[in-house]
Amino acid sequence: MSKIIALLTDFGYKDGFAATLKGVIYTICPEVQIVDISHEVKAYNILEASWILTNSFNFFPAGTIFVCVVDPGVGSERKKLLVQTDKYYFIAPDNGLLTGVINKSTVIKIISLDNNSFWLPEISNSFHGRDIFAPVAAHLASGLNPVDSFGSPVAADSLKKLPLPEPVCLNNQIKGTIVYIDNFGNVITNIPGSWLSSNNVLIKIKDLELNGIENCYTNVESGKCLALIGSHNYVEISVNGGRVCDLFDISVGEHIIIEFLDDQY
Amino acid sequence: MSKIIALLTDFGYKDGFAATLKGVIYTICPEVQIVDISHEVKAYNILEASWILTNSFNFFPAGTIFVCVVDPGVGSERKKLLVQTDKYYFIAPDNGLLTGVINKSTVIKIISLDNNSFWLPEISNSFHGRDIFAPVAAHLASGLNPVDSFGSPVAADSLKKLPLPEPVCLNNQIKGTIVYIDNFGNVITNIPGSWLSSNNVLIKIKDLELNGIENCYTNVESGKCLALIGSHNYVEISVNGGRVCDLFDISVGEHIIIEFLDDQY
Amino acid sequence: MSKIIALLTDFGYKDGFAATLKGVIYTICPEVQIVDISHEVKAYNILEASWILTNSFNFFPAGTIFVCVVDPGVGSERKKLLVQTDKYYFIAPDNGLLTGVINKSTVIKIISLDNNSFWLPEISNSFHGRDIFAPVAAHLASGLNPVDSFGSPVAADSLKKLPLPEPVCLNNQIKGTIVYIDNFGNVITNIPGSWLSSNNVLIKIKDLELNGIENCYTNVESGKCLALIGSHNYVEISVNGGRVCDLFDISVGEHIIIEFLDDQY
Repeated sequence: MSKIIALLTDFGYKDGFAATLKGVIYTICPEVQIVDISHEVKAYNILEASWILTNSFNFFPAGTIFVCVVDPGVGSERKKLLVQTDKYYFIAPDNGLLTGVINKSTVIKIISLDNNSFWLPEISNSFHGRDIFAPVAAHLASGLNPVDSFGSPVAADSLKKLPLPEPVCLNNQIKGTIVYIDNFGNVITNIPGSWLSSNNVLIKIKDLELNGIENCYTNVESGKCLALIGSHNYVEISVNGGRVCDLFDISVGEHIIIEFLDDQY
Repeated sequence: MSKIIALLTDFGYKDGFAATLKGVIYTICPEVQIVDISHEVKAYNILEASWILTNSFNFFPAGTIFVCVVDPGVGSERKKLLVQTDKYYFIAPDNGLLTGVINKSTVIKIISLDNNSFWLPEISNSFHGRDIFAPVAAHLASGLNPVDSFGSPVAADSLKKLPLPEPVCLNNQIKGTIVYIDNFGNVITNIPGSWLSSNNVLIKIKDLELNGIENCYTNVESGKCLALIGSHNYVEISVNGGRVCDLFDISVGEHIIIEFLDDQY
Repeated sequence: MSKIIALLTDFGYKDGFAATLKGVIYTICPEVQIVDISHEVKAYNILEASWILTNSFNFFPAGTIFVCVVDPGVGSERKKLLVQTDKYYFIAPDNGLLTGVINKSTVIKIISLDNNSFWLPEISNSFHGRDIFAPVAAHLASGLNPVDSFGSPVAADSLKKLPLPEPVCLNNQIKGTIVYIDNFGNVITNIPGSWLSSNNVLIKIKDLELNGIENCYTNVESGKCLALIGSHNYVEISVNGGRVCDLFDISVGEHIIIEFLDDQY
């Protein structure tokens, strides 16, 4: 059974940069299976990369090695990390990209990638994805090198953390934040579906007010707005057949309020 | 020899949704080979997905499993299908997406995917691609489960059909429809090249009139329009080195007329 | 160990054209590993394809077969090439796309692909990628067919060459050209980093003047411009966290001047 290396970058699909990582990986470890998570993260947008990774990694097979390169600090003194959890390996710059993953995982070991014997012979200052992260992933996938061999241990509390917004439940309402807008224009919040103990709620974001959570898009007529618990188990706002983000000009970072209308609140 | 699972969706490449399907598939069936047909189908556009699938599937190896998720009715009562033809397997919602494929294939069996023992343990209402279609494809690819085990049989005539436009040949002319516009701005009709028994024809679409079919783009000067029999054996309109769809503002659904100028008509 | 076929085209990711190549390849040679270098080359832009290929191919494993289809002359009399170098195989139309690769490689043999027994049975005039290039690559990858079997030898000096701009060093300055703009808006020149024998230089492009080469993006404040030696070892211009091509409206083909300020010049 071959190991999987999953790639997440802001390289885009055009320039051949992601393909270069694959060439490097296959040169070192020909039997690996490479999966693209995404190469369309907005340039330098660590927050976006973090959301995409956090909401997809746990559907991959145990042993998958994630190589995550959204790295505006490339070439600077920022650390290069290998994080081993109870199920996976994550390779990324130390810039907060792994915050969501670490919050949801049991971390076994964190290594600073400072053993350059696993890097390419020549190291550029602007493409550590190709020169350091990809070859390290391939050497790890080969199964010949223990995690410790790639560098020195790092304490978990020394890692950079993203300031991820947290939803707040106070009195009769939840205040949340829009954390992602997907390909369909769906607006995804950080409010867990499990927080909605009742469906007698009023949902307010910008000029939009919605009553209650629907089961699926087609519960409302085409073109109408709705709230539902999305596939990642967070409250999200949608239009049946349309793009709610465009209709109401909603961006990541905006607030959403859910009011409980039941008496007991 | 490993099985192939080919994916066709409107998920886009950014959000990691297509990658999540791959993670699910590899978890269940590590030895499969996954091919992306496209994840850039316009959101909810079943017609577009149908064209892309219909014009590519028969170039894949026998046994390929196609997973097609353009699914505006996700979570509703629409059926989830597994269609076995004499050469392939197709997994898709029952919304017409498979119309073109079924028209061109010998259907062996159609199953409604209602045996949830092949689904993920938790089922969302908005991501059946991940929770149902992908795991079913992987369990099928594993070779351990007969087609019948995934659900109950469905009659072919009960399936949803897309109202695909048909070309008409009347007196001395053919009336066709634009069914797809490709990456190069080429305008592809539903008129089979084999209908052009003579090349003494006048081709009319919007303000454009062309005499006869050319052999290849470079038969005309750079920037000039031409008609040719495209690689899918349908009449198409192009510009050598340009985008004819933009020059003449041509969209899918518009009509095209081909007049035969020979005396016998 | 399976062979790799790497694909570079201007097909885009939407229409399923690149996927059709993969279907053809896997039908002929199921055990091959396919890698997408890029399918987002601007339509018909041979220069762009050439840059992408030239800057990625040498990171792939020895034996990789590159299939490069940016082919505005498809269906015309232009030759179809198989170029064997000391390390790789390249399959492409004879339109200059391989110029950069050939300049950097030791060519062993060049074949004109005129043996149609390795093509698909039916050949269109507008999709040789699917009908000729992909099946030839797959038959080559299968290891059963020597290079000579695919056609007749071609002399290297008969190939079409792209007129790639060359940098010039005269008196105290280098005059170069912008040859590529990447996903981050970085502006990449054709001036080798090794030409900068001193860092006491003034770099001028349009309204922008920069003093000296920086080591990495974060050497300057966020939003500030800098010059550095990029990961392909050419001088490039960037903005820390931004897109320099947009800020100064810089396009491929524009000139850049580097003046040496040291006394000895």
